[in-house]
Amino acid sequence: MRIPHAVNNLIESFEHLPGIGPKTAARLTYYLLQAPKSLSAAFAQSLEALHEQTKICSVCKNIGESDPCEICESLDRERETICVVEKPLDILSLERSGKYHGLYHVLGGAISPLNNIGPEELYIDDLVRRILKGGLKEIIIACNANLEGEATAMYLGKLIKHKDSSLKVTRIGRGLPVGSDLEYADDVTLMRALEGRSEL
Amino acid sequence: MRIPHAVNNLIESFEHLPGIGPKTAARLTYYLLQAPKSLSAAFAQSLEALHEQTKICSVCKNIGESDPCEICESLDRERETICVVEKPLDILSLERSGKYHGLYHVLGGAISPLNNIGPEELYIDDLVRRILKGGLKEIIIACNANLEGEATAMYLGKLIKHKDSSLKVTRIGRGLPVGSDLEYADDVTLMRALEGRSEL
Repeated sequence: MRIPHAVNNLIESFEHLPGIGPKTAARLTYYLLQAPKSLSAAFAQSLEALHEQTKICSVCKNIGESDPCEICESLDRERETICVVEKPLDILSLERSGKYHGLYHVLGGAISPLNNIGPEELYIDDLVRRILKGGLKEIIIACNANLEGEATAMYLGKLIKHKDSSLKVTRIGRGLPVGSDLEYADDVTLMRALEGRSEL
Repeated sequence: MRIPHAVNNLIESFEHLPGIGPKTAARLTYYLLQAPKSLSAAFAQSLEALHEQTKICSVCKNIGESDPCEICESLDRERETICVVEKPLDILSLERSGKYHGLYHVLGGAISPLNNIGPEELYIDDLVRRILKGGLKEIIIACNANLEGEATAMYLGKLIKHKDSSLKVTRIGRGLPVGSDLEYADDVTLMRALEGRSEL
């Protein structure tokens, strides 16, 4: 059977997205086919605007509407703390928590020798430049809690201490996620939770 | 934090799709942000073409590039059999199996009193009209194997027999899906599998 070209093209576009296989791609396409035309029109518009209306901030490498971005420019943020994350999406998650009010720095990934990603592939030089400019008190390293994230955190910790030994360098806490049972936690998480215990 | 409008709009567009929650929507949007611009441009184009380049076939209610659709027009298909399905997506699945070479008829859903969908909300009148035109030998009812699908199949079976008692009306087999273990099959599936047993 010949599927209409337009349908086939959209299925293929969906398949390019991470975590979406051929079955889901077909399901989403046929959903849009029976949905009002305005839905796919709005979808197409947002896709077109995505790259046109966003910029990568030259200071923190986050995605924003202007350069420097809203966070780097804001006068309401604490300018003495930088939180280092792997991806722009991580900033979204941290902002949702509403607990952090400092600045950010996006690395663009994590050190991963298996994938040929060394420190020079990440925005580490830019971070060092920001540190050497001075005026900072703390760097919070919020890399993922996996092997690559831990390696990157260790590397950054040593590097920052070497560049400015007066700077406080911290790593976000690792332990039991809220709502979870100790029973189901893995060994490494429990080890980290014990190491990271705090006084009541 | 103010997320860029363009990013927010695309997240919202993704959230409108079935099975995609806010977290997945954000992940997909940030994936497209870091992917080449051509990917989202092609995506936007396929979305715009979707409704413009497709039509609902006036005969079988399937989605095609022309009206009547390629299947209804084709001279290679067996024109004495109609397979009745709930949605256009089901035709895609049946065509992939490569086993069926007849015509189709899309109902546009299944009878579901709880959702206020009665026989008059479906393309059943159109099916009856096709049947009364004559020239058919068999109607295969390929509704889903759930409560609504079974009810629709029962209703259609009676209706078709009433309109043309010489017509063979069949229901696709229900039983163990290939690759599955009898141990994990539910009671109703096993009952159907016993009813639908065939001689070796």
